[in-house]
Amino acid sequence: MCGVTKTVVENKSSTISSVHENGSTRNHHSEGAIINLDHGDPTIYESYWKKLGEMSRVTFLGHQSLSYFSNKKNFCWFLEPKLEEEIKNIHNMVGNAIVEDRHIVVGTGSSQLIQAALYALSDHSLNEPNTISVVSASPYYSAYQEIADLLRSGLFKWAGDARSFDKDGPYIEMVTSPNNPDGIIRQGLVNRPNGVLIHDLAYYWPQYTAITSPADHDIMLFTLSKSTGHAGSRIGWALVRDKDVAKKMVKFMEINSIGVSKEAQIRAATILEIICGSCSQSVKPNIDLDNFFEYNKNLMAERWKRLRDVVKKNDIFYVTKYPIQYCNFTGDFTEAYPAFAWMKCKLEGVDCEKLFKEHKILTRSGRRFGCDPEYVRISMLSGDDDFDLFIQRLSTIIGSQSLNDN
Amino acid sequence: MCGVTKTVVENKSSTISSVHENGSTRNHHSEGAIINLDHGDPTIYESYWKKLGEMSRVTFLGHQSLSYFSNKKNFCWFLEPKLEEEIKNIHNMVGNAIVEDRHIVVGTGSSQLIQAALYALSDHSLNEPNTISVVSASPYYSAYQEIADLLRSGLFKWAGDARSFDKDGPYIEMVTSPNNPDGIIRQGLVNRPNGVLIHDLAYYWPQYTAITSPADHDIMLFTLSKSTGHAGSRIGWALVRDKDVAKKMVKFMEINSIGVSKEAQIRAATILEIICGSCSQSVKPNIDLDNFFEYNKNLMAERWKRLRDVVKKNDIFYVTKYPIQYCNFTGDFTEAYPAFAWMKCKLEGVDCEKLFKEHKILTRSGRRFGCDPEYVRISMLSGDDDFDLFIQRLSTIIGSQSLNDN
Repeated sequence: MCGVTKTVVENKSSTISSVHENGSTRNHHSEGAIINLDHGDPTIYESYWKKLGEMSRVTFLGHQSLSYFSNKKNFCWFLEPKLEEEIKNIHNMVGNAIVEDRHIVVGTGSSQLIQAALYALSDHSLNEPNTISVVSASPYYSAYQEIADLLRSGLFKWAGDARSFDKDGPYIEMVTSPNNPDGIIRQGLVNRPNGVLIHDLAYYWPQYTAITSPADHDIMLFTLSKSTGHAGSRIGWALVRDKDVAKKMVKFMEINSIGVSKEAQIRAATILEIICGSCSQSVKPNIDLDNFFEYNKNLMAERWKRLRDVVKKNDIFYVTKYPIQYCNFTGDFTEAYPAFAWMKCKLEGVDCEKLFKEHKILTRSGRRFGCDPEYVRISMLSGDDDFDLFIQRLSTIIGSQSLNDN
Repeated sequence: MCGVTKTVVENKSSTISSVHENGSTRNHHSEGAIINLDHGDPTIYESYWKKLGEMSRVTFLGHQSLSYFSNKKNFCWFLEPKLEEEIKNIHNMVGNAIVEDRHIVVGTGSSQLIQAALYALSDHSLNEPNTISVVSASPYYSAYQEIADLLRSGLFKWAGDARSFDKDGPYIEMVTSPNNPDGIIRQGLVNRPNGVLIHDLAYYWPQYTAITSPADHDIMLFTLSKSTGHAGSRIGWALVRDKDVAKKMVKFMEINSIGVSKEAQIRAATILEIICGSCSQSVKPNIDLDNFFEYNKNLMAERWKRLRDVVKKNDIFYVTKYPIQYCNFTGDFTEAYPAFAWMKCKLEGVDCEKLFKEHKILTRSGRRFGCDPEYVRISMLSGDDDFDLFIQRLSTIIGSQSLNDN
C-alpha cells in the first residue's frame, strides 16, 4: 500500500550501524549542521522572488485594513476582493481547477480550511451523536489525523486508512492529488454511498506535475505555501461547489478566527498577480521576468535529477518513479517533480527516519503517514545549502555502505 | 445579574410600536442606511492612523517571510522576534500586564488563543471522557459559548453562567476584564478548587479604562483589534505563566493553522512600536505625533459624553455608569469609556435588538450574552459617520417617545 513503484533494488542485508559508522567522510564545514527536511518549508522559492526585487513590493499604511470586514456583500465577508480575483485568474491561466460557479473561501492556510470543510460536511443535528468518519488512503498526509482528532470532536473522527475502511454510513475521504507524501495522482478510493470527498490539491501546480485537466470536484483546497512558496503568509483557499457548504465553512472561520489576516491576503493577491503576469508574454515589458512555473519547475527538475543520480546505482534507498505525462499548461510532456521524495530504505529492519537522523538529516517517518518505518518523506523544497548538504550526506551514506559491502 | 448599575429611570409603559411609528423625523440623507453596531469593528482608530501617514508604512518584498518558521530557537517557533519584543515593550510602558517570566504565544486573533487555552487546560488522558466545563459570568462575551461548542469537543464543553455553576470537578472560568459587553472590572467568580481561569484582557488599555495595576494572572489574552484598532490583521497574544501550558497552546496552533501570518505579525510589531514611541516624549522629534492612548481616549470620552447627553433625560434607555478611578498610566483620575455601551430598554416586554433594528441600527441582543432581550450591546468603536447617525437616530427614538408620552 505504501510501496515505491517501478524501482527494484535488491536487499543486501546491511545494518544501520555499518552505515552510520562509515559515514565519516562528511563535509567538514557542515559537520555539525542539522538539516531539517521534515517540514515542506518552501524556501526553494527564494531565488525567484529575490530576482524580482522591488517589483514585488507590497506596502501597508497604518490606517489601512483596520476593519474585520473585507467585502460586506460577499457571503465570505472576510475575503479580500482582490485576492478573490487573482485566485480566479491564476486557476484560469494555469488550467488546474474550474472556478466558474464556485464559491471561494479563504483560510489561515489550508489546515484551517480542512477543519472548516470537516465542520461543514458533518451532521449538526442535536438528537444523537452522529460522528462522521474521516479517512484517507495510506500513505496519507500526516496532518489529517492530527486535525481530525485535535479536539476529540463529536462531529467527525479520524477512522484511518481508506483502504481498510469498512464501516457503513457516511464518511469523508481526503483525496490528496498529487499525493503528499508520495506524489502519486489520486482519486477517491472508498467509492461507497454516503461518501463525500475533500480534494486537497496543494501540489497540483505545473512546477510539480503535469496539468492534465482542470480539476472539477465539490471541495478543492489550495495553499499559497506550496503554489508560490509563501508559507509564512498562512493563506489557503477552497473552491466549493455547494453554496450551503461554503457558508458553513465561513461560519467555522468566523468562530475559529474571525476571518483571515488582511495583510496576508493582500500580499497573496499581489504575488498571484505577479505570477500571472510572468506567464503572459503580453505583460512582460522591458524587465527580465522569468515564467514563475518554468523557472521553479527547472529548479525542481534539477534537484530530482541530482537525487536520482545519487540513488540510481545504490542498494540501500529507492525513490518513486513517475510516468511521463502531457501538461496542458506547458504544452509539453513532463515527468513529475514532487515537493517530497518518498524514500524506502532496503536495509533489513531499519528505521529510516532514525538512520537519517544519525546523519543529521531530519525527515518524517513513514509511520506518520500510516506506513512502515522503512519509509521516510524528505522535503525537496529546502534552501539550496540544505539541499546540497542533503545530497552530500546521502552520497556519503550510500558510499560508505557500498564500501562496507565490498 | 445583567443589571445596568447606578441609574434609576422610571418605566412609563411605552411600547415598541409607539416609538417606531413616531420615529419619522430621521435625517433624510441617511434614511436608508443601516448602521452595523453589532460587531466591535474598531474603525474609530482610523483618524489616528491617517494622521500618521507615511510614518506608519510597512513594506514586504516578495522573497521575505517565505518560511513557516519565525524563530526556530523559540518554543513558539512561529512568533516573530520583533513582535515578541514590542509586546513586552508596550505592556511595560502601559503597565497593564506583567511580562517578566511569561511565555508569549501569538494567535490569529485572540479567538484562536481562547481555543488554544481551552485545549491546553483540558485533560488529554485517553482512559475516560473527562470533559472540562467552561463557564463565564453573565453577561459574558457571546463568542465564548460559540467557541467552546464549535466542534462538540470531548475535551471541553460550555457550561453556561458561572453564577449558577454548581458541578463538582475541574472547570475553566473565562474572566473578561473590563467585561465585554458591560465594561465592568471583574475577577473570578466561582472560586472553587480545581478551577483554572483564563483572563481575557482585550479591553484593559488606557483608552477604555483606568490602568490600576499590572495584571498578573496565569493566562492573559490580548488582541490587536481592540488595543490598536487593527482588527483586520487578526493578531492576538497570550501571556502564559506555565511553560507546559504555553507549549500545549503552541501545539494547538501548529495543528489548527501551522502558525500565524508573518505579514500581520510584522505589521503589528511596527504598529506597537509606533504607539510606544508616541507615548515617549524622548522619541518624538519634529513631528506631530499624538500620544496614541490620550488621543483615542479623548475620542472615546467625547462619544460617551454624546451618548450620555442623549440618554440622560430619557425614560426609555439607560446605560451603565462607571466609577472614577486613578489611572497609573495617565497619572490622573478617569471614568471608564468602554468599547461597548450595554444598554437596557425600559419599555415593557421590549426586544431591544428588534427595536433598534426597526430604526436601522444593528446591535447584539442581551440574549447572546446570557441575559434578557431588553439588553443590547452597542459598539462605540464605529466610524464617525455611523456614530453620528446612531446618536441622531437614538435622539429621534427618544424624542418621538417623549412626544408620544406627552
